[in-house]
Amino acid sequence: MSRIDAGIAPTEVLTFGETMALMRTDSPGPLATAHQLALGIGGAETNVAIALRRLGTDVTWIGRVGDDGLGEKVLREVAAEGVRVVPILDPHAPTGLMIKERRTGDHTRVTYYRASSAASRLTPEDVPAERIAAARLLHVTGITPALSASARETVFAAVDIAREHGVTVALDLNYRAALWSAEEAGEVLRELVTRADIVFAGDDEAALVVGTGECADLARGLAALGPAQVIIKRGDKGAHALIEGEVLDVEAVPIRPVDTVGAGDAFVAGYLAEYLAGEDPARRLHTAVRTGAFACLVAGDWEGMPTRRELSLLDSTDPVQR
Amino acid sequence: MSRIDAGIAPTEVLTFGETMALMRTDSPGPLATAHQLALGIGGAETNVAIALRRLGTDVTWIGRVGDDGLGEKVLREVAAEGVRVVPILDPHAPTGLMIKERRTGDHTRVTYYRASSAASRLTPEDVPAERIAAARLLHVTGITPALSASARETVFAAVDIAREHGVTVALDLNYRAALWSAEEAGEVLRELVTRADIVFAGDDEAALVVGTGECADLARGLAALGPAQVIIKRGDKGAHALIEGEVLDVEAVPIRPVDTVGAGDAFVAGYLAEYLAGEDPARRLHTAVRTGAFACLVAGDWEGMPTRRELSLLDSTDPVQR
Amino acid sequence: MSRIDAGIAPTEVLTFGETMALMRTDSPGPLATAHQLALGIGGAETNVAIALRRLGTDVTWIGRVGDDGLGEKVLREVAAEGVRVVPILDPHAPTGLMIKERRTGDHTRVTYYRASSAASRLTPEDVPAERIAAARLLHVTGITPALSASARETVFAAVDIAREHGVTVALDLNYRAALWSAEEAGEVLRELVTRADIVFAGDDEAALVVGTGECADLARGLAALGPAQVIIKRGDKGAHALIEGEVLDVEAVPIRPVDTVGAGDAFVAGYLAEYLAGEDPARRLHTAVRTGAFACLVAGDWEGMPTRRELSLLDSTDPVQR
Amino acid sequence: MSRIDAGIAPTEVLTFGETMALMRTDSPGPLATAHQLALGIGGAETNVAIALRRLGTDVTWIGRVGDDGLGEKVLREVAAEGVRVVPILDPHAPTGLMIKERRTGDHTRVTYYRASSAASRLTPEDVPAERIAAARLLHVTGITPALSASARETVFAAVDIAREHGVTVALDLNYRAALWSAEEAGEVLRELVTRADIVFAGDDEAALVVGTGECADLARGLAALGPAQVIIKRGDKGAHALIEGEVLDVEAVPIRPVDTVGAGDAFVAGYLAEYLAGEDPARRLHTAVRTGAFACLVAGDWEGMPTRRELSLLDSTDPVQR
Amino acid sequence: MSRIDAGIAPTEVLTFGETMALMRTDSPGPLATAHQLALGIGGAETNVAIALRRLGTDVTWIGRVGDDGLGEKVLREVAAEGVRVVPILDPHAPTGLMIKERRTGDHTRVTYYRASSAASRLTPEDVPAERIAAARLLHVTGITPALSASARETVFAAVDIAREHGVTVALDLNYRAALWSAEEAGEVLRELVTRADIVFAGDDEAALVVGTGECADLARGLAALGPAQVIIKRGDKGAHALIEGEVLDVEAVPIRPVDTVGAGDAFVAGYLAEYLAGEDPARRLHTAVRTGAFACLVAGDWEGMPTRRELSLLDSTDPVQR
Amino acid sequence: MSRIDAGIAPTEVLTFGETMALMRTDSPGPLATAHQLALGIGGAETNVAIALRRLGTDVTWIGRVGDDGLGEKVLREVAAEGVRVVPILDPHAPTGLMIKERRTGDHTRVTYYRASSAASRLTPEDVPAERIAAARLLHVTGITPALSASARETVFAAVDIAREHGVTVALDLNYRAALWSAEEAGEVLRELVTRADIVFAGDDEAALVVGTGECADLARGLAALGPAQVIIKRGDKGAHALIEGEVLDVEAVPIRPVDTVGAGDAFVAGYLAEYLAGEDPARRLHTAVRTGAFACLVAGDWEGMPTRRELSLLDSTDPVQR
Repeated sequence: MSRIDAGIAPTEVLTFGETMALMRTDSPGPLATAHQLALGIGGAETNVAIALRRLGTDVTWIGRVGDDGLGEKVLREVAAEGVRVVPILDPHAPTGLMIKERRTGDHTRVTYYRASSAASRLTPEDVPAERIAAARLLHVTGITPALSASARETVFAAVDIAREHGVTVALDLNYRAALWSAEEAGEVLRELVTRADIVFAGDDEAALVVGTGECADLARGLAALGPAQVIIKRGDKGAHALIEGEVLDVEAVPIRPVDTVGAGDAFVAGYLAEYLAGEDPARRLHTAVRTGAFACLVAGDWEGMPTRRELSLLDSTDPVQR
Repeated sequence: MSRIDAGIAPTEVLTFGETMALMRTDSPGPLATAHQLALGIGGAETNVAIALRRLGTDVTWIGRVGDDGLGEKVLREVAAEGVRVVPILDPHAPTGLMIKERRTGDHTRVTYYRASSAASRLTPEDVPAERIAAARLLHVTGITPALSASARETVFAAVDIAREHGVTVALDLNYRAALWSAEEAGEVLRELVTRADIVFAGDDEAALVVGTGECADLARGLAALGPAQVIIKRGDKGAHALIEGEVLDVEAVPIRPVDTVGAGDAFVAGYLAEYLAGEDPARRLHTAVRTGAFACLVAGDWEGMPTRRELSLLDSTDPVQR
Repeated sequence: MSRIDAGIAPTEVLTFGETMALMRTDSPGPLATAHQLALGIGGAETNVAIALRRLGTDVTWIGRVGDDGLGEKVLREVAAEGVRVVPILDPHAPTGLMIKERRTGDHTRVTYYRASSAASRLTPEDVPAERIAAARLLHVTGITPALSASARETVFAAVDIAREHGVTVALDLNYRAALWSAEEAGEVLRELVTRADIVFAGDDEAALVVGTGECADLARGLAALGPAQVIIKRGDKGAHALIEGEVLDVEAVPIRPVDTVGAGDAFVAGYLAEYLAGEDPARRLHTAVRTGAFACLVAGDWEGMPTRRELSLLDSTDPVQR
Repeated sequence: MSRIDAGIAPTEVLTFGETMALMRTDSPGPLATAHQLALGIGGAETNVAIALRRLGTDVTWIGRVGDDGLGEKVLREVAAEGVRVVPILDPHAPTGLMIKERRTGDHTRVTYYRASSAASRLTPEDVPAERIAAARLLHVTGITPALSASARETVFAAVDIAREHGVTVALDLNYRAALWSAEEAGEVLRELVTRADIVFAGDDEAALVVGTGECADLARGLAALGPAQVIIKRGDKGAHALIEGEVLDVEAVPIRPVDTVGAGDAFVAGYLAEYLAGEDPARRLHTAVRTGAFACLVAGDWEGMPTRRELSLLDSTDPVQR
Repeated sequence: MSRIDAGIAPTEVLTFGETMALMRTDSPGPLATAHQLALGIGGAETNVAIALRRLGTDVTWIGRVGDDGLGEKVLREVAAEGVRVVPILDPHAPTGLMIKERRTGDHTRVTYYRASSAASRLTPEDVPAERIAAARLLHVTGITPALSASARETVFAAVDIAREHGVTVALDLNYRAALWSAEEAGEVLRELVTRADIVFAGDDEAALVVGTGECADLARGLAALGPAQVIIKRGDKGAHALIEGEVLDVEAVPIRPVDTVGAGDAFVAGYLAEYLAGEDPARRLHTAVRTGAFACLVAGDWEGMPTRRELSLLDSTDPVQR
Repeated sequence: MSRIDAGIAPTEVLTFGETMALMRTDSPGPLATAHQLALGIGGAETNVAIALRRLGTDVTWIGRVGDDGLGEKVLREVAAEGVRVVPILDPHAPTGLMIKERRTGDHTRVTYYRASSAASRLTPEDVPAERIAAARLLHVTGITPALSASARETVFAAVDIAREHGVTVALDLNYRAALWSAEEAGEVLRELVTRADIVFAGDDEAALVVGTGECADLARGLAALGPAQVIIKRGDKGAHALIEGEVLDVEAVPIRPVDTVGAGDAFVAGYLAEYLAGEDPARRLHTAVRTGAFACLVAGDWEGMPTRRELSLLDSTDPVQR
């Protein structure tokens, strides 16, 4: 351990949550006939953090992992992307793990080894008030409160501290059916929505909180709970937003997707990067759909996240730059 | 060798034939510029056997291979799939071998090293009457009689024994131009058709036996030779069948195929699995086209064969299950 | 599911226990800098089963795994080796998993994801009396009772049934410090030793049961608890045995080991294969040390297990056979 | 060095220029997250040479490379294709190198390490008059004069010698923006065009020399400078030609391209092979578009170049030949 | 770019210099017959930085790279290790590159593409005084002054600033014959030695500065130039040191080396980590030889650097920890 | 086909024989558990040809292969090494194939698919008199006459033509037990020895021709049959020679061998290269043992063959050249 105390450096975005080791087969087929797995990492919050960083935003991620090789892997990959990492090594629980079986090119089955993982043991002490206060924006997802009671408590505590310090709170609902029931999730997420400034949700996720409805109804329903900015992510149908009372619709960028996992996180990062840069809502959504589209062009949850320079490739027709 | 004699266990389906070591390049291009080959196995009868097993049917395969590393490979991969393997090790001849050059994504060239292979030395003694009698269905293909005189003799002997014991005989014509002429094949296959209960054929294969004609003509022509169930496999155009006098047409499942090799074998397995399960002809064909479609979604002759649970993925629109 | 009931086929050796998916880095270095993992399987009982099978003994393994891709992997690899597999699919718990980090060529760190695994939920019903009665020998290890209370109960129940039916009981102490304390293990293993006919142990493992001592003391101590055959495995120092009152010492075969994991299981299989073949104790130990030595020549827990023909390579000086 | 002087063997086509080591990532994504690079070679003139050789034409390539491992790589791969290689090893400069980052499936970024490379030090002495005189056709590209002053001098000297000896001069404009400005290139290429018999150009390249215009205008403009054969390569729109005063238009072969790099070189080779074989202009263009189309079906700059036998696969509908 | 100014954070060690992309063949043999290269990074200063970080020391590295994919690779790998990276992107020059050909297991040939690289364009402005003042120790090597005049100037400027601010200056002579002559190097390195507090050198390197002599003579000669701590690295013969007037000799740890590249950098890091932790000279050297030994156990320039916990593996005899 | 007739170019060494596609597992273990095979080529005569070429000798190889992908592979790899290849494509027989299973690091099992291969159909017309007359030396091995009657006839015919034209005849006995019996071989090889100028043999091979004896006896025995130069290759014991009546003994270079296959061919090439360069017998043997030693340092039959520059690495103690 270093004997120099660097204090808490200011950051634009602070986020935390579970990032797991991610193993996947290289080509489609049964996992049982595979002999090699690619080893990487994945987690909604670090997907957003990496995408933000590639877009030029300063980000800090607080991550709790096991004191094991996979934990080192998680920490090193996030740090590699230029995200500032605040590691919490849990000597008593392993790093979470997910295995992706690409059964066919279009069907992926995910198996988790995350019950009792290190990250499920997150506690409010892991996310100290000074770190939150040193940020301009706190980003949380609806996955963390599903991990455990203490993780849920951590999210609520962090959000409350952010509000106290005037730090903007962004929330992506990110409902994961494998972790909790729709009923339980709906109730908790509704509580979180009431405390957030910016809320991202898919149609189905919004419906968990405000009941089924048309896209515009969902946005209005969420906004009615408090958040000034509500954005409904609609995949290849674009996005619908209700921002400071203004309704905006944006179309998706037409692409041939290779891997749609991570596209929602890319969208969130595109929006937040422009928000923090002081851009207007239309510009935020413009960048959001483009960032989301680009992320679909490469396999991997976050590997395809674009830099600002790379976003312009979406407009290029020349396949080779030389 | 074990000193415990397990006797001949009953099985639902008995099959036999040549399964070869299969080497293929991973990505398209000339074989001459490749540096690595993927090592697997392939054979029409074991393709069917594996597909049947994944669909839940009990299958036994009698396989003659060389007493060498590639023979061990063949045996271990078939056994790995849960097919019961009755190995015959030939100390005097090598295991057959096929090499697949994917010259482009759409053009594959196959080179065989199967002349004088162990499997071409199959003899009637290799397929004893007790094993046939212990099965409900015997499945043979038109490849085996093309391998050698003794292999041909083995097929006819097995079919005769099956008929004697009231075991259903299924036959897939499977004409291979590299092994014998259309004339020679037509004559032999016609003889086999007269002895079969269930016959599968492509349009061209049926024409070898009954002469050119419309799809319905071909089916009628084959049925006139004896088999109560005749199914014309028509690839992405579906299938036409004449079953116990009833005409049925079924459309293919629309997919983007990755590798169509093995699709015909999958179709056969889908049909036979439902036939053995007592399902009606429409249900048999429904499962047959779906099994065939699924097999096209993954590279490899048999790796893509689906389980019953996986068949439902064809109806799913959610790319990731988590 | 097949509608044919095959009954319980007789087998020479019956064994059961946890076999896990095993992921390992291909070359030495930190796991955190690796990008690919080789996917295989490993478990002490299947290591023994596979080695026995390669030596020509008929073996049946009862395995409880998760109803997931890694469970399919475990079942297919064991079946591939010709071991008869009796699968028990647990829909409520995942397949156990181990990750091997080869930090240097000489130092390996293993991380387990096996707490609450499917195999830890083994119950006495999983190992029915008919299966035990149909065997000549039951092989158990000291790992299974460390997995859970129900797994422990299963081992004791199976051993008791074997004794009732006159089935020989073989036990490898296999102490795993990651699973339970030396105290707890010592007590349970002592109980098992009293019920076994053949006991295998390393020096340290024997000491857990009978207290520290010279090699001969340890063997005598174990034999005093009941077993007619006690074999102390001593790695590159060979083995010491007390068999039906006779003391035997055998030297190890001098080799340059590549991977010593699995060598103890190979030793056990070599001994048991000869015991079942009716060979005398000296012959059993001769084959045991040779099988153990051979297994060290190849990376992997079981991949290096030799056939009887391959054992003779230990005497060959010609590197290439052509 | 051999002590036998083989003299200067006659050849059909002589060509020279820079061929570099080429490293590329296997799958799309940032270079920064890649861990393996495929090592190959690439250069416009050897692409043409290899394509010509596969079509059956005798070709000689004069190549200047560094006296290093990558230089050996370049020489061995060109020689492997049956092209006669005249190596010039430069002990004072390294072999040129290019790195291809496939950022997405549709966007490739190329980085060069070719400034001061061995090939940029080409001098007129490297291309002796006897070698030129021993050929029927000299092929040069607009890349070489962009490498350095001495390389430019070498091209002009070689072209002049060819004209003196009645050797046909073929020129592919091949403008590379990374090497020189449009202005500088336009001037030099215009000079070369006036000296060539056969000129190939893309629309944009032709415009550099004769100013913007319709396709037919461009061809007429180039022809007005001297060459009897002018061919405008138009990618998936086919080609337009003005040959001995005759206008010809040919459509492209419809394909799904995998990698379009090298397609232009394939087109050139298809044209030249037929020209040397005495075929008429329509046949030359027919083969040119087919060779270009085939080259797009496989990844790699030259790996996909077809043999004459393989060209017929474009007409085949049977995916597997067996 | 982030709009939050984080200021200059204090660091224990500051270092700078050229880190290149590093491509190497996986197995021994000619580069010309290889088809894949492993892509990594390497540089003496980042080797030391990474080793220091793994030992728990806080380190900052200032790196100048090209604005290209390989530059991103260099930055991401150093950041991945937890070293704080201060990137300087040079839009006008490429990232340096080195290629390692393992001709045999014992003979490696390195080819460089580093002339005119981005790092050779380092200038004093790249290493601002505030960053130096914020460190406890500045580490430089004799490689940087060999890159270019401006790089040399940068080293001297940085060293002078460090001395002004009381920051300890550590210097590893690191003579590279490919970059400059022994005469030129001797003169410049001598100047640097006079300005350093801690000097590391191999026997041959020390001789460049003070003339040939016995090990003790070399140390005395260097110490006479000013540095209070002089350490002669002697590879598998250990080390000799003259520290504050005290002579110390330490033996190497006996190991079977896999790759000795990076061992000298590991040694330096081991020494400096303990120096900064306030340990006495004997302890520093003890850790230095152990860190150096460990680094030899794994392939790669820095991949094998140990953590403090891993250093204890050198004393372990148990190959598997589970 | 080219319409330019290049005539028969003079060459220093002419050789011919069977070169096969060679597939091998990358790491030791059963072939049956491997999933990838490395694809290369191998044949005694091309091993010698490649080694000669790397040492700077001009060589031509006449090779008969199948008109298939593996035949193209053989031709391209030999041509890649700078050997002039005279291809004979046999449309009626496949290219020979060998599979190497590295069962352990020290035990390799080879399986051949070469019966009825294209090369076994070599005929005297394949080796025309003009080609032989254009060479200084003809190199044949004892493998070719074992392939078939026509291949045997080809060897004798070629040797006779060489003698007529004053071309030196070199012969490596190369007995292959898998191809013919010792008796049959002994008789044929004796006939060949009487016609050769230079004979290479291992102890055992020499004994086939002249009966068992001490090394010196064997050399005398062979020399008594006619050849002026007899060299007994003794592996790691060096070599014994009887050259123009002079006895010479040379020791082997001490190395740690990685793969000894091809070492004998390297030895032959080292000797012949120096013989053709006019060096004296001692120098020939000196280079022979060094070339043989170097070839053992790299895996592969010919990949490790050294250039003259690389031979000096055997004297280097510095592992890294940079």
